[in-house]
Amino acid sequence: MKELEQRILSEGKNLGNGILKVDGFINHQVDPMLMNACGRELAQAFAGIGATKILTAEISGIAPALATAMHLGLPVVYARKTKPITMPDQVYLTLAPSHTKGRMVELIVSPEYLGGGEKILIIDDFLASGSTIHGLVRLTQTAGSTVVGIGTLIEKTFEGGRRALQALGIPIISLAAVASLENDTITFA
Amino acid sequence: MKELEQRILSEGKNLGNGILKVDGFINHQVDPMLMNACGRELAQAFAGIGATKILTAEISGIAPALATAMHLGLPVVYARKTKPITMPDQVYLTLAPSHTKGRMVELIVSPEYLGGGEKILIIDDFLASGSTIHGLVRLTQTAGSTVVGIGTLIEKTFEGGRRALQALGIPIISLAAVASLENDTITFA
Repeated sequence: MKELEQRILSEGKNLGNGILKVDGFINHQVDPMLMNACGRELAQAFAGIGATKILTAEISGIAPALATAMHLGLPVVYARKTKPITMPDQVYLTLAPSHTKGRMVELIVSPEYLGGGEKILIIDDFLASGSTIHGLVRLTQTAGSTVVGIGTLIEKTFEGGRRALQALGIPIISLAAVASLENDTITFA
Repeated sequence: MKELEQRILSEGKNLGNGILKVDGFINHQVDPMLMNACGRELAQAFAGIGATKILTAEISGIAPALATAMHLGLPVVYARKTKPITMPDQVYLTLAPSHTKGRMVELIVSPEYLGGGEKILIIDDFLASGSTIHGLVRLTQTAGSTVVGIGTLIEKTFEGGRRALQALGIPIISLAAVASLENDTITFA
């Protein structure tokens, strides 16, 4: 998606160690027009897969998942990283390593909103190593539902997440694919 | 807003101790059509106040703030509760008590995205005691900017948050005002 790639080039920052900072328009400050355009693009890409619900992970997955959900007219569930007091005692929980936090984080979904027989579209901001998305796949499968598609705003192809997810045999779409962050540049695939 | 009130009555759950569970359409699972309608309503209410940016707090403020931002065409910044590695060392930080977490939480904003001279519209899911919103007001004022409006989806009028915020002399709008959660019922103001 040209609009997103151009924004990454003009406002993204390569912080080194494979970290791409997009805090100015995706992760801390959000450009709602760009996010809406990304949601429209992901909705078009997944219009034909018969998804019944969108699943993402707090925090930075919420904006792209909501924007996509608005265009598909599907409910969106965001996995929590801490269990709020409003959640029942029995939940679906899995652990996933967080690279930006440097530790394992919990991904928690209430069985009230992730039941069996759903066709789940997973949306997140980044596809890097794929560990968060793998966690969302595990939650979906544990609930007796099926993941039918995976969509992200930005893929870091050099972290290999796509390779590990391809065994699912479902469409995996990213709107901007960064092939390299070496030598202080941002190179798209 | 009738649509939101009806949804609270049909799907909200009074958990006792003043806790209203809206996890099925606002806080864990999100109904994107309802959220979009709430965003439109808040955008109309605040169309004339000259806001230049929307400020909210992760996690559950993100959806209503983004929906409002889409209709106003304004950038939205969400205060983080943990500092990501992409954030600079020097940040604006304040502490606010979280009733649903039962402890103090940090609200952190990067000076990159909250500077001086901005007119800030604060959007959140709940106005209860007002402690999170007070935290966002402190962050705004510390950055040299001004809060020009406060909008929330649901107000719990019996927690008194509005009273404490009225000294700011700015419009405070909630789309559904719950006056009481006593006797296992939900009563609107």
